[in-house]
Amino acid sequence: MANFSLSREFAAELDQEDKLASYREQFITNDPDLIYLDGNSLGRLPKSVIERMRQAVEEEWGTDLIRGWNKGWWDSPARIGDKIASLLGAAEGQVVVGDQTSINLFKLAAAALTLQPQKKRIVTDTFNFPSDLYILQGIVRLLGNQHEILRIGASDNDITPDLAALETAINEDTALVTLSHVTFKSGYLYDMAHITELAHHKGALVLWDLSHSAGALPIELDRSNADFAIGCTYKYLNGGPGAPAFLYVNRKIQNEVTSPIWGWWGQKDPFEFELNYQPASGAQRFLAGTAPMLSTLAMEEALTPMREAGMDALRAKSILMTDYASYLTDELLAPFGFSLGSPRDSARRGSHISIRHEEGYRINRAMIEEMNVIPDFRAPDNIRLGFAPLYISFADIWEGFDRIRKVVEGKHYEKYPRQKLMVT
Amino acid sequence: MANFSLSREFAAELDQEDKLASYREQFITNDPDLIYLDGNSLGRLPKSVIERMRQAVEEEWGTDLIRGWNKGWWDSPARIGDKIASLLGAAEGQVVVGDQTSINLFKLAAAALTLQPQKKRIVTDTFNFPSDLYILQGIVRLLGNQHEILRIGASDNDITPDLAALETAINEDTALVTLSHVTFKSGYLYDMAHITELAHHKGALVLWDLSHSAGALPIELDRSNADFAIGCTYKYLNGGPGAPAFLYVNRKIQNEVTSPIWGWWGQKDPFEFELNYQPASGAQRFLAGTAPMLSTLAMEEALTPMREAGMDALRAKSILMTDYASYLTDELLAPFGFSLGSPRDSARRGSHISIRHEEGYRINRAMIEEMNVIPDFRAPDNIRLGFAPLYISFADIWEGFDRIRKVVEGKHYEKYPRQKLMVT
Repeated sequence: MANFSLSREFAAELDQEDKLASYREQFITNDPDLIYLDGNSLGRLPKSVIERMRQAVEEEWGTDLIRGWNKGWWDSPARIGDKIASLLGAAEGQVVVGDQTSINLFKLAAAALTLQPQKKRIVTDTFNFPSDLYILQGIVRLLGNQHEILRIGASDNDITPDLAALETAINEDTALVTLSHVTFKSGYLYDMAHITELAHHKGALVLWDLSHSAGALPIELDRSNADFAIGCTYKYLNGGPGAPAFLYVNRKIQNEVTSPIWGWWGQKDPFEFELNYQPASGAQRFLAGTAPMLSTLAMEEALTPMREAGMDALRAKSILMTDYASYLTDELLAPFGFSLGSPRDSARRGSHISIRHEEGYRINRAMIEEMNVIPDFRAPDNIRLGFAPLYISFADIWEGFDRIRKVVEGKHYEKYPRQKLMVT
Repeated sequence: MANFSLSREFAAELDQEDKLASYREQFITNDPDLIYLDGNSLGRLPKSVIERMRQAVEEEWGTDLIRGWNKGWWDSPARIGDKIASLLGAAEGQVVVGDQTSINLFKLAAAALTLQPQKKRIVTDTFNFPSDLYILQGIVRLLGNQHEILRIGASDNDITPDLAALETAINEDTALVTLSHVTFKSGYLYDMAHITELAHHKGALVLWDLSHSAGALPIELDRSNADFAIGCTYKYLNGGPGAPAFLYVNRKIQNEVTSPIWGWWGQKDPFEFELNYQPASGAQRFLAGTAPMLSTLAMEEALTPMREAGMDALRAKSILMTDYASYLTDELLAPFGFSLGSPRDSARRGSHISIRHEEGYRINRAMIEEMNVIPDFRAPDNIRLGFAPLYISFADIWEGFDRIRKVVEGKHYEKYPRQKLMVT
């Protein structure tokens, strides 16, 4: 870890040395006082998206009308998929965009179970998104409750998973291992290649949820031999609210698996209007219906600055930011009852950290309502701080932590009730 | 049928008497020469959507950022659902928007089969969208090939379904009857109340695909006792390319059925982050993941002119338009080998007609490439003409037919190869 200092000037020095600092100018920052530490929930708006959307609405929809489908709309799931693939360590032809993360998880998890019908175990963990667990539960019920879901336990206080328990849980009866690559609460980063190998050793397929790692760090899907992956595009990929998700199917198994949702965008020759479904070849077969083009095209444009900056440079900055934030947690906030809720080893950490406080819920609310800082809160006591390396400065981090200190020092949070805010 | 005349002046007279004529001004028509008869595939852009999208991008995403979820995004599926419900004869709380038509069909059809697991028959017809048939086939396979799909046959030459065969097919073993309310090729309009009653009489549930009827004619979902409905919003509802679909679940059965896709937007208290799924009450439980907001909000805005005009007035104009187009087919085009491929009884017809010609494919292509007319083509020989009553004029119809006549008379189509165009 670098040799940090507590002063505001030190943060300014870090910014001066930041080779990615100029990327911030490619994003809309209408309120310069706002410290936005929630880019891991909804990324900021890249400026170029404004003109792209105007064009998509007025020129494509407005003028091209139905002809737009032949001018780039129809091809967009595969075209944008390839752009995202380049951020995921995946060769072309394995990633498509469309639908939402939950739908894509449903499609790929069901496909995995159908491929090995004799195996009845699904292994996941309690660090996974609850939304992912729901989808798995729904599939198990739909398939007649023949499968068991082993959810490797962790208490609310745990920061890192129980890897030994995970390894033990994966047995010869395991059809699927599915985990969040970076866990949403503590930001723990799984060793993708290692876990995938463990699973393959027992004959299980592996499905990674990349929602909190795509755009935050280099991913090596192909090199890790991952079977499947899904992820959203509205967090670090800055795709816009609810932007369509992506899915990855390793080329090695693409033509062995089929989607449970036989959509016409996944049909072999959709414009033949045949009455019987035949899956398209490749990842395309996992597309379902007509994709929401405005949201899709906004997301495509939003990828531009990230693709230019490159994941290695972004990761270097991200690690420096989360190291710095960990330092500030220890040195500035620990005296006020905070503790770090994330791994200290940056090699095992994504681009957000959680800081824990027994009044975390009310502190988070005070930050939003009084201090013009936007973190988010995750029960029981985590204030989650996301550091999107494309547009967050070290000065932002210093200022954000200093405002947290002020809220706690001044007990500003005590006026707020202990109830949940609706944030995502 | 009105007493029509072949002259261009007569079309102008019809426009003068058209009380909805001024609505055309609420839509973008950048190319005044274009005769756009494909609003049943992709509706035109309402002018007010341009400003609404600018606002959604720059102010909501750009400035509100994650706070947008509490300022109208999170509520949008139910709020917009209620707006659409008012066009479908459905009381509030039964329609939500999100996902695509195919996904929504998957959710509701699987829910219906799961509700009556002892019944193994699904009844549909060959007039249904191939995409709907694919989804049903996928469900049957996913559930272990225990169900049979009875597809009431019709040849490519048929315009109306075999209602007697349909009635016979619905037996005590039938779990689900699912049909397109208006069939995509001939535009045949099913009697929703009658078919629903037939199905209920045998204990089957009914699911209507409203993609070609929503926004084209008054629908009475509640009064017909329909169980489920789905539909897209990018055709007559003008929601934009690939805009999110809607689904309807009758209040009477909402809490008896559950989605096969246990998404977090359908979870009872999603912000509790519970690890086990509990369905929300009402139609909300059929939502899946985070909805694509830009596409969703554009679609919401696009509903405004239609809600103002009212479905009864739109239907009256629509019938006059399809009657007029049928007349022009008979009087102007029949001498050149065309025949009407749609019902002559307007009570059994939606808002599009098909005109048939053995060179239909090539004629359609010549219309698009040389005549600035956009119809679309459906095999084997249907040129489909959609008459969106909000913005199509009678002069458009006259001009469109006159250009078709010119293409056929001059044999302009003969230079085009006999291969498929990629249109949707």
